[in-house]
Amino acid sequence: MISRATKITIVGLGLLGGSYAKGLYNAGYNVTGIDIDPSTIAFAKKMHWIVEGGPEPELVKDSDIVISALYPRTFVEWIGTNQHLLKPGSILTDVTGIKREVMGRVNDMLRPDVEYIACHPMAGREYKGIAYADCSQFEQANFIIVPTKKNTERGLETARELARILKFHRVSTLDAAEHDRIIGFVSQLCHVIALSLMNISDNPKLCDYTGDSFRDLTRVANINEDLWPELFICNKDYLTAEVDALIAQMTRMRDLINAEDVPELKKLMILATERRKRFGKR
Amino acid sequence: MISRATKITIVGLGLLGGSYAKGLYNAGYNVTGIDIDPSTIAFAKKMHWIVEGGPEPELVKDSDIVISALYPRTFVEWIGTNQHLLKPGSILTDVTGIKREVMGRVNDMLRPDVEYIACHPMAGREYKGIAYADCSQFEQANFIIVPTKKNTERGLETARELARILKFHRVSTLDAAEHDRIIGFVSQLCHVIALSLMNISDNPKLCDYTGDSFRDLTRVANINEDLWPELFICNKDYLTAEVDALIAQMTRMRDLINAEDVPELKKLMILATERRKRFGKR
Repeated sequence: MISRATKITIVGLGLLGGSYAKGLYNAGYNVTGIDIDPSTIAFAKKMHWIVEGGPEPELVKDSDIVISALYPRTFVEWIGTNQHLLKPGSILTDVTGIKREVMGRVNDMLRPDVEYIACHPMAGREYKGIAYADCSQFEQANFIIVPTKKNTERGLETARELARILKFHRVSTLDAAEHDRIIGFVSQLCHVIALSLMNISDNPKLCDYTGDSFRDLTRVANINEDLWPELFICNKDYLTAEVDALIAQMTRMRDLINAEDVPELKKLMILATERRKRFGKR
Repeated sequence: MISRATKITIVGLGLLGGSYAKGLYNAGYNVTGIDIDPSTIAFAKKMHWIVEGGPEPELVKDSDIVISALYPRTFVEWIGTNQHLLKPGSILTDVTGIKREVMGRVNDMLRPDVEYIACHPMAGREYKGIAYADCSQFEQANFIIVPTKKNTERGLETARELARILKFHRVSTLDAAEHDRIIGFVSQLCHVIALSLMNISDNPKLCDYTGDSFRDLTRVANINEDLWPELFICNKDYLTAEVDALIAQMTRMRDLINAEDVPELKKLMILATERRKRFGKR
């Protein structure tokens, strides 16, 4: 159980780590922050989101719960270098948006006396850095726990409790492969589309004639270029399969349009409209 | 000049025709409505959006301004059948979302004593029918006038006045080919993407894990299947070229992901983020 006495450390105070710190502070918990950027630590302290912090990995050593909010491969490296500092019996969790590679590598090397619970808070914004930290976004967001056979009920309950404290809308469980496949479709594929759309054309006139549909489709083209290549590459099998599936569908639609096949186009639109209804308004 | 004494008739009281009627009524004008559906006419009358109406094309005969809010090819057919009813010296305008084919066919056959000003109000919603009429959407929308050499200053000013009365955000002018090319990209391509995305997968689990990006990208998949095949087909040269350009971009991204080419992926993300900024937030 997470109590006021629980020592919680967040490693990496970027957009998501900063939002976690803010949310935990709002809920009355004491957080330690580790970040290599002194101005990030200074900002977090000034906001009172962390009670102590600095660049030293040693700050982690008495922590009951360690939350890595590092980029996927940085997280793996950090564990490789610093896992000897973790407290026996502590819980380690993360926020990375892809799971198979990260979980495989962390679980392969992690000390048996530390329990790693893989989590993916499905939150984020089109910005980076602690200045954009915003824990209110969690209230509409899914929190996915990706358990393994190594996890204990105590570990899983800690992850669920963390999600409740941070006020996530919904907590659910997926296995790593299922998680990565779904994320490859609902999130990563959408980012590939938005990026591709923005990269097709440099006609400045387009801005003047853009309606909501184009603006909606390209919102996520405003992207963190340090994080996303890694997310794509760590999930490349599923993601490229989804890209290929979309290309096949678009090719089919193009051929139907060229053939002026109204009945088939109608069928396809009716099916899409039907399915889209399940996803709610917006 | 459009005055209270100007006789205005709207042909086709669907979502857009109904929204025009409502907007003109709100601004104090008297509108006649023509629609083949008696319940649509009854609804428009009950709301006072039209002062008279019915299915008979003859209702158009004393009108100074005739606004067709019919589907593109229905509009062309309607003019073919009923143009003898138009009043000499009257102004004819429309709302169709593609211009070259419609304008070519209407201008080829129209009586010389009637002036046709092609317009495209860039408004619409993911619903059809007068029950969803909503003139407030015009306040954020572009109104595009597509003039030809045949148009007079009096005719063009009538179109601009109509846009002002309906409170469109911005009135601009494009030639027919430029219009169709831009629409093919900023609107039609987005609809092809949304439809293709919805048609790829029928995994009901997806709804549970969908974030804003997927919801934003597929909003327009909720589509009027009677109208859109026609819009796509009337613009098939430009639209299929845009679909091909997007497929080429997505193929390139897929290959970069497969090759784990981080520097190129970064470059492409920075460019997309830069460009996206011009389009404003949302």
